[in-house]
Amino acid sequence: METMPGNKAKRALDELQVVAGNGLLDRRAFLRGGATMAAAMTGYTAVKSAVAAPLADDPWSLVPGATTRSYEQRSRFEDKVARTLSNPNGEPRNTHARTPHHLLNGTITPNGLHFTILHSGTPDIDPDKHRLVIHGLVKRPLVFTLDALARYPMVSRMTFVECGGNSAPMFSPQPIQATVQALHGLASSAEWTGVQLSTLLEETGIDPKAKWLIAEGADSLALSRSFPLSKALDDAMIALYQNGERLMPGNGYPMRLLLPGWEGNMNVKFLRRLKLVEQPAMTYYESKIYSQLLPNGKAYQFYFLQEVKSFITHPSQGMTMNGPGVYEISGVAYSGDGRIAKVMVSADGGQSWAQAALQAPVLSKAFTRFRMPWRWNGGPAVLQSRAWDEAGNVQPTRAQFVAVRGETKTVPAVMGFPNQHYNSITSWAIERDGEVKHVYA
Amino acid sequence: METMPGNKAKRALDELQVVAGNGLLDRRAFLRGGATMAAAMTGYTAVKSAVAAPLADDPWSLVPGATTRSYEQRSRFEDKVARTLSNPNGEPRNTHARTPHHLLNGTITPNGLHFTILHSGTPDIDPDKHRLVIHGLVKRPLVFTLDALARYPMVSRMTFVECGGNSAPMFSPQPIQATVQALHGLASSAEWTGVQLSTLLEETGIDPKAKWLIAEGADSLALSRSFPLSKALDDAMIALYQNGERLMPGNGYPMRLLLPGWEGNMNVKFLRRLKLVEQPAMTYYESKIYSQLLPNGKAYQFYFLQEVKSFITHPSQGMTMNGPGVYEISGVAYSGDGRIAKVMVSADGGQSWAQAALQAPVLSKAFTRFRMPWRWNGGPAVLQSRAWDEAGNVQPTRAQFVAVRGETKTVPAVMGFPNQHYNSITSWAIERDGEVKHVYA
Repeated sequence: METMPGNKAKRALDELQVVAGNGLLDRRAFLRGGATMAAAMTGYTAVKSAVAAPLADDPWSLVPGATTRSYEQRSRFEDKVARTLSNPNGEPRNTHARTPHHLLNGTITPNGLHFTILHSGTPDIDPDKHRLVIHGLVKRPLVFTLDALARYPMVSRMTFVECGGNSAPMFSPQPIQATVQALHGLASSAEWTGVQLSTLLEETGIDPKAKWLIAEGADSLALSRSFPLSKALDDAMIALYQNGERLMPGNGYPMRLLLPGWEGNMNVKFLRRLKLVEQPAMTYYESKIYSQLLPNGKAYQFYFLQEVKSFITHPSQGMTMNGPGVYEISGVAYSGDGRIAKVMVSADGGQSWAQAALQAPVLSKAFTRFRMPWRWNGGPAVLQSRAWDEAGNVQPTRAQFVAVRGETKTVPAVMGFPNQHYNSITSWAIERDGEVKHVYA
Repeated sequence: METMPGNKAKRALDELQVVAGNGLLDRRAFLRGGATMAAAMTGYTAVKSAVAAPLADDPWSLVPGATTRSYEQRSRFEDKVARTLSNPNGEPRNTHARTPHHLLNGTITPNGLHFTILHSGTPDIDPDKHRLVIHGLVKRPLVFTLDALARYPMVSRMTFVECGGNSAPMFSPQPIQATVQALHGLASSAEWTGVQLSTLLEETGIDPKAKWLIAEGADSLALSRSFPLSKALDDAMIALYQNGERLMPGNGYPMRLLLPGWEGNMNVKFLRRLKLVEQPAMTYYESKIYSQLLPNGKAYQFYFLQEVKSFITHPSQGMTMNGPGVYEISGVAYSGDGRIAKVMVSADGGQSWAQAALQAPVLSKAFTRFRMPWRWNGGPAVLQSRAWDEAGNVQPTRAQFVAVRGETKTVPAVMGFPNQHYNSITSWAIERDGEVKHVYA
């Protein structure tokens, strides 16, 4: 345990247990109740006394409301809650749409805001005509319609998908002033429902020579990736539903490969073909793009796991604090290697740490929301989160990370800009005026 | 345990364990793997052998795809997956929008398809101007902006909301031919994130005389309901987020009261006021509408709990089976009284039962997806599900239910059409031609 009492910061707020430096409060504080809590809550300066006069009626309370639609749409006041697009005009190159973590809460990414990366746009697939073929080193090659798949036993699981290039701006030697959406928006989490790939491979049978599968999409690029048979027989899924409804177009409608905890690009969308083979296919995305070169000259080829990571979403870069007082620090943590075991939070740039509350249920390879009450005294602070997973992996500090993986200036240009599998701690500095900045600490 | 071996139905399918009459298979069958399963899977008649020729490219694989939008929309091929509207033209009366359970899967209802009932339409609320007032028998009345609430500790929980009138068509003495959407579409489940009401009551303080709260919405009706203080201090929430994003307009944007497991109407939307009082307010919805009269002349007034229920969504009324063979039976179960303990499934109208698999995690007061493999032999079958919750409540048979609660013909007209808190077993008959009908069995 890295929890420290943080006595220096305790000061006058004796009613609540200060558990680490610069105002971090015990995560159980809000669960205790009683007069203690009520006294402490006066830190919420935005709360004002209500007047005794009758409530004023707002204009929307004076007229009948709008008619109900068959498919509900968001309020017009939520238009700003949007994915940022790297290629809004659809030029003939890839396009990234990043999840606005700082405007969301909970553990689910709503379907409209799940991140996507499309390399040749979103195909307009007729689900009744789409087919999935499993062939190659199998005993009987088979083709499946969507209706056929619907008869198989299904499973549902909450899991994140994360691009191997998520958080890449943090390879920069200087901290880029960018929101949590820009830094970490290429990760999202949803409940996926579909058929376990192992179930379908029971049907086709497996030739003992088969060791890998090649997955191919029905987009015009026919995006292809190889993955080992062991993953296919473990937790790989042919996903048909996303948060209860059919997949969103940009997430692979009508079906995608889901490899929980592995590099996003491998979760092939618009899946039309799985071929069992002896060796990986060495496709473009595995031999060129997702083969990160390292400072020591070696490469990260066939490195699939998305390692343990966390980041604070509230508060985060670009926000301004509304005066001193009590706030909730919250964020998401996840690991491709299982459940999150704990998240520690610091308000003093890593000098002292306290354990955050984890929102139940804590699920394997899914977003876990962590929460920590904090009394901001109005002075400088540096907020950090650090996650551990049940496999014993710990999120590295930035110094630890770049010592091994390098940063832009330490990796020769010939090796390309380092941009993959970044998972170190993120730091947000609160300045005296309440502005939140991205810093390295 | 009501599981019965069902030997009569076992017949030639010796590879898989038949666990109840008319083809119900062991719920663990699909998890066992191995040659046993492969042999059994030939029941999936919709699966065909793939030809050895190269795959044909579909038209959408030959052209660049569509540009990405900042807020993803569904495929145009999903337009039929819609809520049914009781008042599509917005006439000046209430309007129901029902969830299409038979077209969804998993445990989450996507935000576009969560059921709603609006009594005076959906107000167009500016969230920056909306206020929540807590007053009455408190020590300090307070008013909260959305920004103020955002600083409080939040919680997330998966929970269902269900209208007290859900499943009411089953009070009819004859089974109405209607889909699971029409019968049970006034229940949905989502991850809600917000502030526990108890946290806010710590701030206001509570006058010892307070025993009830009156919740009031900002819709033009100012819909009001009373609920006991004990619920406010237990698990009541001021919900701000629905499946990660701000509430949908029809679900109470920008904030609603959430009373997990209690009658949907009490979960007051567009919440603008909570008044602590000594006695319930006897509002229209609690004294007239949600005060179900019973055959014995007594009434169900202040009966809040949504009791244990389950229904099969796949297959269900209106579908046609695609020939004999193996299918997955699945559906949802939930209880306002805690977690689902087990779900039993019958394929022979209740003569024999087998235990369904429950999708983990099984959460309190949330939809639990149950699944059961079934080999349909092409003959008549009656599918039923029956749920138990951890508090020991069991879903009644229809005969047990109507003996106590009555049906249309047994409740005098003067008492009104019985339409609330119906939770008996639902039965789907599979006819020889594969059509699925609603029956009482």
